Amino acid sequence: MEESVRFDLEASIDVLRRSPTTLEALLRGVGDAWARGTEGPDTFSPFDVVGHLIDGEETDWMARARIILARGPDARFEAYDRFRHRKRNAGRTLESLLAEFAKLRAANLELLRSWRLTEAELDLEGTHPSLGPVTLRQLLAAWVVHDLEHLAQVTRVMAKQYRSEVGPWVPYLPVLTDHEVPRS
Amino acid sequence: MEESVRFDLEASIDVLRRSPTTLEALLRGVGDAWARGTEGPDTFSPFDVVGHLIDGEETDWMARARIILARGPDARFEAYDRFRHRKRNAGRTLESLLAEFAKLRAANLELLRSWRLTEAELDLEGTHPSLGPVTLRQLLAAWVVHDLEHLAQVTRVMAKQYRSEVGPWVPYLPVLTDHEVPRS
Repeated sequence: MEESVRFDLEASIDVLRRSPTTLEALLRGVGDAWARGTEGPDTFSPFDVVGHLIDGEETDWMARARIILARGPDARFEAYDRFRHRKRNAGRTLESLLAEFAKLRAANLELLRSWRLTEAELDLEGTHPSLGPVTLRQLLAAWVVHDLEHLAQVTRVMAKQYRSEVGPWVPYLPVLTDHEVPRS
Repeated sequence: MEESVRFDLEASIDVLRRSPTTLEALLRGVGDAWARGTEGPDTFSPFDVVGHLIDGEETDWMARARIILARGPDARFEAYDRFRHRKRNAGRTLESLLAEFAKLRAANLELLRSWRLTEAELDLEGTHPSLGPVTLRQLLAAWVVHDLEHLAQVTRVMAKQYRSEVGPWVPYLPVLTDHEVPRS
């Protein structure tokens, strides 16, 4: 593994602002078979991923950043419901979710930028319900990685929809056999 | 695994046309640390992936489709050089590669659509140098999956650049430890 990139707030915001347009490019107007396909029971479709990212905007990353910045005596995060979106978005269209995610993300990044966080603030800690103490810097880095992880998931799930159509190419397209046992 | 999607030419073209805009959304103007980072020696950076996709436009998918449609006595594909882009693109900017990929892809999809392929034509076979007989339908499905695989790779490689910055979050972000042994 090469030297990895050090955390940088502006660069993080720059990556985070790309996710809504990336998802629009991948998914807006795509057929239902692609939008709703999964990797098997209890795994996310691209539609589910957009809902999960909306949950993150509403209940996770910025909510936890606020808890840290409040500097209270018990900066403990609330547990995060990974399946909140299932009920919330029943009956919604993918297009409306994409638009909602873009709006929520833009507002969150505007707020984040407005905080003009200092290095000392980025060092402040909160308590993750299962991981223990984490800094604001680590929280924001995890937000970036979480986005990219789910973008990788969307493209992997889409790829798998053509698994039976590529004939002898399967061994040359390892994404098709990636994570046979679902893990997220 | 659920029932997978059956090959459909229009839907395939619709997915293929999304890749240049998806890559633009992810990568245009991104910092060098993100564009040039890799997963370790002999693995592709996002910059390399765009170059590899350009090679595919110029030497792989449509060239092979033409060989199949020519119905010659020996419809054998030429071997594909996975590292052609390394020499070809030394000194190029990511932005110029993104623009070139978009242009080549648009032209290839216009040509593909102009062929108005019939089911009988999609059943025609060529010979892959190592996989043996493959149909035109399988070739086009593999093109779609290949795109999505490399989009997943770009986001995974980007995610890994923040591996050392997320602190205790590593086990909750499995993309960070995905494919420790590089495979493509």
